[in-house]
Amino acid sequence: MSSTIGTLFRVSTFGESHCKGVGAIVDGCPSRIPLTEADIQPQLDRRRPGQSKVATARAESDTVTILSGTENGLTLGTPIGLFVPNKDQRPGDYQEMNQIPRPSHADYTYQMKYGIRASSGGGRSSARETIGRVAAGAIAEKVLKLKFGIDIVAWVSSVGEIDGEVDADTITRERVDGTMVRCPDVDASARMEQAIVAAKADGDSLGGIVSCVCRNVPAGWGEPVFDKLEAALARAMMSLPATKAFEIGSGFAGTRMRGSAHNDMFVGKGGQLGTRTNRSGGIQGGISNGEPIVFRVAFKPPATISKAQPTVDFNGTPVVLEAKGRHDPCVVPRAIPIVETMAALVLMDAALRQHARTL
Amino acid sequence: MSSTIGTLFRVSTFGESHCKGVGAIVDGCPSRIPLTEADIQPQLDRRRPGQSKVATARAESDTVTILSGTENGLTLGTPIGLFVPNKDQRPGDYQEMNQIPRPSHADYTYQMKYGIRASSGGGRSSARETIGRVAAGAIAEKVLKLKFGIDIVAWVSSVGEIDGEVDADTITRERVDGTMVRCPDVDASARMEQAIVAAKADGDSLGGIVSCVCRNVPAGWGEPVFDKLEAALARAMMSLPATKAFEIGSGFAGTRMRGSAHNDMFVGKGGQLGTRTNRSGGIQGGISNGEPIVFRVAFKPPATISKAQPTVDFNGTPVVLEAKGRHDPCVVPRAIPIVETMAALVLMDAALRQHARTL
Amino acid sequence: MSSTIGTLFRVSTFGESHCKGVGAIVDGCPSRIPLTEADIQPQLDRRRPGQSKVATARAESDTVTILSGTENGLTLGTPIGLFVPNKDQRPGDYQEMNQIPRPSHADYTYQMKYGIRASSGGGRSSARETIGRVAAGAIAEKVLKLKFGIDIVAWVSSVGEIDGEVDADTITRERVDGTMVRCPDVDASARMEQAIVAAKADGDSLGGIVSCVCRNVPAGWGEPVFDKLEAALARAMMSLPATKAFEIGSGFAGTRMRGSAHNDMFVGKGGQLGTRTNRSGGIQGGISNGEPIVFRVAFKPPATISKAQPTVDFNGTPVVLEAKGRHDPCVVPRAIPIVETMAALVLMDAALRQHARTL
Amino acid sequence: MSSTIGTLFRVSTFGESHCKGVGAIVDGCPSRIPLTEADIQPQLDRRRPGQSKVATARAESDTVTILSGTENGLTLGTPIGLFVPNKDQRPGDYQEMNQIPRPSHADYTYQMKYGIRASSGGGRSSARETIGRVAAGAIAEKVLKLKFGIDIVAWVSSVGEIDGEVDADTITRERVDGTMVRCPDVDASARMEQAIVAAKADGDSLGGIVSCVCRNVPAGWGEPVFDKLEAALARAMMSLPATKAFEIGSGFAGTRMRGSAHNDMFVGKGGQLGTRTNRSGGIQGGISNGEPIVFRVAFKPPATISKAQPTVDFNGTPVVLEAKGRHDPCVVPRAIPIVETMAALVLMDAALRQHARTL
Repeated sequence: MSSTIGTLFRVSTFGESHCKGVGAIVDGCPSRIPLTEADIQPQLDRRRPGQSKVATARAESDTVTILSGTENGLTLGTPIGLFVPNKDQRPGDYQEMNQIPRPSHADYTYQMKYGIRASSGGGRSSARETIGRVAAGAIAEKVLKLKFGIDIVAWVSSVGEIDGEVDADTITRERVDGTMVRCPDVDASARMEQAIVAAKADGDSLGGIVSCVCRNVPAGWGEPVFDKLEAALARAMMSLPATKAFEIGSGFAGTRMRGSAHNDMFVGKGGQLGTRTNRSGGIQGGISNGEPIVFRVAFKPPATISKAQPTVDFNGTPVVLEAKGRHDPCVVPRAIPIVETMAALVLMDAALRQHARTL
Repeated sequence: MSSTIGTLFRVSTFGESHCKGVGAIVDGCPSRIPLTEADIQPQLDRRRPGQSKVATARAESDTVTILSGTENGLTLGTPIGLFVPNKDQRPGDYQEMNQIPRPSHADYTYQMKYGIRASSGGGRSSARETIGRVAAGAIAEKVLKLKFGIDIVAWVSSVGEIDGEVDADTITRERVDGTMVRCPDVDASARMEQAIVAAKADGDSLGGIVSCVCRNVPAGWGEPVFDKLEAALARAMMSLPATKAFEIGSGFAGTRMRGSAHNDMFVGKGGQLGTRTNRSGGIQGGISNGEPIVFRVAFKPPATISKAQPTVDFNGTPVVLEAKGRHDPCVVPRAIPIVETMAALVLMDAALRQHARTL
Repeated sequence: MSSTIGTLFRVSTFGESHCKGVGAIVDGCPSRIPLTEADIQPQLDRRRPGQSKVATARAESDTVTILSGTENGLTLGTPIGLFVPNKDQRPGDYQEMNQIPRPSHADYTYQMKYGIRASSGGGRSSARETIGRVAAGAIAEKVLKLKFGIDIVAWVSSVGEIDGEVDADTITRERVDGTMVRCPDVDASARMEQAIVAAKADGDSLGGIVSCVCRNVPAGWGEPVFDKLEAALARAMMSLPATKAFEIGSGFAGTRMRGSAHNDMFVGKGGQLGTRTNRSGGIQGGISNGEPIVFRVAFKPPATISKAQPTVDFNGTPVVLEAKGRHDPCVVPRAIPIVETMAALVLMDAALRQHARTL
Repeated sequence: MSSTIGTLFRVSTFGESHCKGVGAIVDGCPSRIPLTEADIQPQLDRRRPGQSKVATARAESDTVTILSGTENGLTLGTPIGLFVPNKDQRPGDYQEMNQIPRPSHADYTYQMKYGIRASSGGGRSSARETIGRVAAGAIAEKVLKLKFGIDIVAWVSSVGEIDGEVDADTITRERVDGTMVRCPDVDASARMEQAIVAAKADGDSLGGIVSCVCRNVPAGWGEPVFDKLEAALARAMMSLPATKAFEIGSGFAGTRMRGSAHNDMFVGKGGQLGTRTNRSGGIQGGISNGEPIVFRVAFKPPATISKAQPTVDFNGTPVVLEAKGRHDPCVVPRAIPIVETMAALVLMDAALRQHARTL
């Protein structure tokens, strides 16, 4: 499956950094959904680098074309082809690349796996791979909104050692995009911005944590045993470049509580049941319980830095690597639409699978 | 897929708490592997409850039978059927069960998903479901050991607020099993034991964190994009009952470091390359790099406690729930073989998929 | 996937001829369906050998046990484990088996694929493998009947060179079982019976053709492109032992007609559209059109005969093989419930997938 | 899966008749295979309509572009994106289309399944959908040739009632392409050509049968139980538009033989075993036996004819349909590269799966 995710809402991505372009096929989208490029482009624009002084200035614009699957602005129920051309289609200098695997990059592991690799840009491990995902995710988001009123909002909850405070119940994308670093805690966001600028000045990079909430998810979604909803979310988030950890609900902190303090007591909520607290993060036994689904994803600091790095080349000969050219000192703000995308893909597939159970 | 995991090494589990029994089918196991029940039983015994005073005393013994797929002690390459009969096959009193969904259990979500649920024991959300996994995992472990010399060791690194210190490079299962709580840090393990006994006395429960290391995994395993090795591991671990979080390598802590401090510099190691540090946790770009794979899994405190809980019944009427009967105050020690199992299933599948690439 | 079929209604079978037993796991069955062994046993009895003088006398009785997935006679929506113990669990004499691969059997190909094989009975290529399928198929049939009133009837339309005439619109299982060879054309069935008896007397065997009709299948089932309904049926039928061909609707004969004669003209039928003729066999463009689905499956004469056969052993040394013991001279009558089973499994999966599309 | 085929060599196609274009993603292709558009274009050219006076004159040329997955003429092991733009991207007049479902077309079934359909050209049921398959198949063919010396040749063995005689052991693509109708039996091909011209003059159409041989397939490929090699081939062939039947080896005719006459006796062949005859069609028990794989596929006469057809519109009102514009009176010659393609896709996947078993 490798480059395909989903059982009924299936997304297959393709494309490296310097080939003709990147994209995805979305197979299993319900028919008769209003859909044009205008529904997809906004999330692609949100993930684009070079949007602020905290990121690398870049002319790059990623414009999506729907290749198939719609007619007269409606989905046909057939595979939706999505394509975004690459601006820079010249593979780099193969010779030089061969010399030195970049520390904490995928150069070495791709070489060991395939015996070959894209000559630059990281190939499939490049952030550009996520463009196809985001285009597909925008479609999933639209269907989830139309059919269930679900909304998904992610934000930056920490950059390096700076943490922000955000209320998951009320946060909106508008407020998230209100600050340059996409942390709606204005005070924290200012300090995050300074930290990023400082790291950039040092030719260094910073990691951070993205939080995400999915509201209005009906109870009953998610498939025991191996496809528990939190398992599907964890897999989806950990499939993103640079992620190192995933938490749902109380996460690691929950392990330090006693059961009597951790359990979410039930209460009546509009005919159905809800819970007084939400340490479960909206999921119990792998199935959504109707409460907001809340999770956190850890992004390591980008491996590409301009600081000199003492490492070895492919032959094991010690060298000092000094990466040329620009790099993003912190990708966490750009990760926001990507995390939302992966959540949408997981929920869309769960929605179709649960609906099938209602036969 | 729901109850099936794996692409080439496929494990499908079945069974509730009070049906005839639980088990699994393992499809895709290499042929001509020496295999008898004796290879499987030890891990089943390690996961069995009631093995010490920190756990609930229970007579239960889970004895596995190989139903198919082997002959004269060798695998045939055909599906291996595994079965463990349930001791207690009487479903509980359906009426009473219907009254009150247990807080932070799957009673409510199963009811919302299926419109019905096993009358007691939690059905597929019960810990007994993991028996089929562990039986299958023991087979995967044997093949990984035989073909690659891989060894997988998990241990308890925290219980409640008590943390243990363990060296991932040298830890062995023997040392893990040396203490009652399976934390090889003897001092910490003593305090963990006391904490568990105290929680039990209060009719309460404790969570904890399990760490795991996989040694001798060759470089090149794992499939970009959506089947990155860390994504497969995260999904596998988060598919276990009561898990709330997953970390690989530096995890959440890594987000607080700068790239220059976080990057794993390469060094020559016996012909191939290795890394000086291992914040990547043995995986870069979704592919193993030859270093030990190290990850952590968070287990929440068990939802079943005997302390009174103010909640509501299925009709939303406030009630006070007082769970009768014994319960495990802390399942983390028992989770050790289960975490090892899931790691083995993920690695076995990755091994076959990578081998296919060597065509 | 190998031993698993289906995307949403997933059936995984296991078991060889001489292991503990054979069975299946059914994952994805809708919940709250009344189900007990009594719903499954009848089809198992219909597939049992030794039911008439045209077949080999055999004491064998295959009794199914539901291991999991139901409670109080209702499905839980969880995996349904099905098990049928083998009467004869002694593997044959491995030495002798090694000598000679049986012509047109799977002995040689299994050996080449796995480097080992079940010492007798054909292992997974044995007819016993179909027991797990039939048990699972009976569940699918029940759901299809309950939810859609679908009924599936197969019959013997030829044995050797003898053809029977049967009306697909009105044929019932009762009438099929009315004759020993399961061909409701009484005159033809008498001649088929004689032919089988004669072949048996010669220590030889006969093939034949099974026809099948699925009535009341709603329009809209089946998934373009690769999962067209006829493609799924062809795959399912050709996965049965001894099958050599599959036809839907007009089949090979249709290739000899002109389009103007072959096209099925539409007519109004109770609000929807139907077709005047049914050369399409109930499927157009891979999707059911509401007309009866009609197809035919070719079964070769059984490879096991007692007549002497000049062949070679595994070393290529010429030998004359004289198979000992009883054999079925014609398996076509027994294939009836198996063909019905495979049709039910395909339709059940298509039903769930189409329902998912109605989101 | 719908528009995806394969477990390890996965092909996902997309595109309707009048959208931007059609194509495929090939995921799982081995790395370091020399590959450029020049390896793919020839088969696309062979499937193109309008190549002879027996077909409809059409300017159409289908030019493929590799979007991703290769660099410097070598495969990277990453998904290979393939794209062929549509010449005519204007959807037809939706209004008119809505009136009348074309007999034996997919207009009605698509409408019943999706509640919408491509306004003309048949959408995914159009022959254009096969372009993506053929492009992907050319890649599979190249790998099978390079790694195993496998060659796959299909030919027309009948058109309407005219049968040709061809020797499967020696036939080559050059000889197949030597005649306009791709039947190397020169005498028969002349009569086939006349029959097609005559049908065209009558505004009618003809069906036919395609035979195919796969040579040099090693013994041991194919996966019992549900993925038997013949099952995978049957599914692949029946997934093609207009196919109605599939035969492997002796097929339906084999059902009229006795076992003693049908069995393929083994003989020594160059160290391994072979069979004296090949009624098994190169497959026994679902696994290749090293003999040539031989099968036949039935194609019905094209549903699109210009002859007047008495049918009904979507409301059930009787109408006489007179299709305007050109149509192919016989698609069988064009089906040759498509049948070869599907065989290549099935074998390539089987090759990778069997290789995985050699761990």
